[in-house]
Amino acid sequence: MENPRLTEISSLGEFGLIDRLTADIPASHANQSTLTGIGDDCAVMRYRDTDILISTDLLLEGVHFDLTYVPLKHLGYKAVAVNLSDIYAMNGTPRQITVSLGISRRFAVEHIEQLYEGIKLACSIYGVDIVGGDTTSSRQGLVISVTAIGDADPDSIVYRSGAHDTDLICVSGDLGAAYMGLQLLEREKVASAGQKDFQPDFAGKEYLVERQLKPEARRDIIRELRKAGIKPTAMMDISDGLSSELMHICKASGTGCRIYEDRIPIDYQTALMAEELGMNLVTAALNGGEDYELLFTVPLHDHERITKVPGISVIGHITRPDLGCAMITRDGSEIQLKAQGWNPLATVEENNTKS
Amino acid sequence: MENPRLTEISSLGEFGLIDRLTADIPASHANQSTLTGIGDDCAVMRYRDTDILISTDLLLEGVHFDLTYVPLKHLGYKAVAVNLSDIYAMNGTPRQITVSLGISRRFAVEHIEQLYEGIKLACSIYGVDIVGGDTTSSRQGLVISVTAIGDADPDSIVYRSGAHDTDLICVSGDLGAAYMGLQLLEREKVASAGQKDFQPDFAGKEYLVERQLKPEARRDIIRELRKAGIKPTAMMDISDGLSSELMHICKASGTGCRIYEDRIPIDYQTALMAEELGMNLVTAALNGGEDYELLFTVPLHDHERITKVPGISVIGHITRPDLGCAMITRDGSEIQLKAQGWNPLATVEENNTKS
Repeated sequence: MENPRLTEISSLGEFGLIDRLTADIPASHANQSTLTGIGDDCAVMRYRDTDILISTDLLLEGVHFDLTYVPLKHLGYKAVAVNLSDIYAMNGTPRQITVSLGISRRFAVEHIEQLYEGIKLACSIYGVDIVGGDTTSSRQGLVISVTAIGDADPDSIVYRSGAHDTDLICVSGDLGAAYMGLQLLEREKVASAGQKDFQPDFAGKEYLVERQLKPEARRDIIRELRKAGIKPTAMMDISDGLSSELMHICKASGTGCRIYEDRIPIDYQTALMAEELGMNLVTAALNGGEDYELLFTVPLHDHERITKVPGISVIGHITRPDLGCAMITRDGSEIQLKAQGWNPLATVEENNTKS
Repeated sequence: MENPRLTEISSLGEFGLIDRLTADIPASHANQSTLTGIGDDCAVMRYRDTDILISTDLLLEGVHFDLTYVPLKHLGYKAVAVNLSDIYAMNGTPRQITVSLGISRRFAVEHIEQLYEGIKLACSIYGVDIVGGDTTSSRQGLVISVTAIGDADPDSIVYRSGAHDTDLICVSGDLGAAYMGLQLLEREKVASAGQKDFQPDFAGKEYLVERQLKPEARRDIIRELRKAGIKPTAMMDISDGLSSELMHICKASGTGCRIYEDRIPIDYQTALMAEELGMNLVTAALNGGEDYELLFTVPLHDHERITKVPGISVIGHITRPDLGCAMITRDGSEIQLKAQGWNPLATVEENNTKS
């Protein structure tokens, strides 16, 4: 560590580091269910009339993120947001998280503070308490493991398995932008190699970069659906790509599906970027991943109500299982859906080079 | 991967691997509170009259374990046991775990199956359900993140902060053996370097090896205490060393303490090994770590009852805070306790070479 203004982590030790990172976490918890947080063998929670939802994600440097272009604060924010997204995708409300970090020697206390700034910002925005974790050294690279805990009224929980024949397939926001943002960031990384004062060119592509670096969990959509009195029959968040997630829902529900190419919501920046890179736009939207939008199904009789909810696109419908899972293209032909989304058992590079 | 009998993980993909690892997990859950497990965005649990305890640990290859001498099955068992230990240390009962794995390319499906065998064995022995997790590739080394969820009657939870002046300080089992086991394994690793058919010499030291490789969570002690009608005033499990943990209790409780060197329970194999290695035995027992025994305090009036509980040693008592934390040595002198236990922000080697 050559910068004298940076503090070596070993100079604080584990408990010193934790104290420093958590010093400004308010003593009063955002949620009633949080009884005690950091500072004992376990966190203690109390849920009385609700069910409890737990989701966990493991993020590894070189597999899930590249610190050449991912700012640590954004990374912290994203690590929390993607976990909360899973809780919302069950129609629940996130309440607590635990954060475990493996930190290699090239990180100073100030770096981990930046990471934590993003973590705390996400917690504050989504009203979630940090209740525990584990902090350790890592031999290589940064390791982030976040577990989110949330609650839901037992009657409100939405599983993947509840879709029925004729249900409408809906998706929030737009798709493929996070993947295009990744392509853009990777391109600028290559272009910058060896140049000291390289200025990446993101003009007119800010949305793509933001979608990749700072995704949001769609709490707003969950609230809108509740307000509209709509309970989805099945729901997931889109982390590995629309195609893969839709096939999960159909498999769990024992159904088939038809979606329509021209109904898939795509931002114009995504379309322009795909053209610039000579990539197939629909492939990016189907398999790109990391959009963290909500994919859900609603009964056919909710058609009028769902079309009034802002930010929702109806992209197709559920079918009998024997009809399989397919997309109707713009020219009316039918192509089978494939689950070739982001592969967590591959590296960043391998996922980036998939077509 | 040169062994043709091994299966490459990429040949299965994430969901194929998870299916294979979890195929023999019984559909019926061990715990009523487990509603749904693996296979949706979240696991769903229901706790009605109890509070919920959550604890999480991050284990990294090269920092927490060395696969040269740690069998994968043992590693899986230990990864679960050390998390359950935290739940018992709050006087709770573990019910569920999530298991996240980062797997590097040198591992085959069969290797991860061995790891999972240990995980499932621990779950079966302790009556815990595996409800979720995340599986991904890792650039370097194996990453294991386990989160344990448990419950406790609100009136039964024991925090670190409840110790009072005159309370008796108690410890289960014996201390320092896991640390001596680590020293032994490291010695045999060095001795075996470059030798193909090296047979490590563990004769007469089996207990030390077992304590290091396959620690147990002390559920039995929690049960014995309940049977005896004793509720500790404060409790922790000893993962970083007696000295460090005792100072945590005293800090959280606003007290001091006195422990007696001659009361610290040490197995004869630990003592022989310390002599063989020329190490200070009491230092090993105070700072060795990874024993996963329970350290707890009970009111003075429980003295007679606690001495009747098998496997418990009374090693000292809590004092007023101004008296500090100290150990009375065999020759009657008083030495201040220091928290120089296992340092999670150091590497295996650094922790092994501490004195």
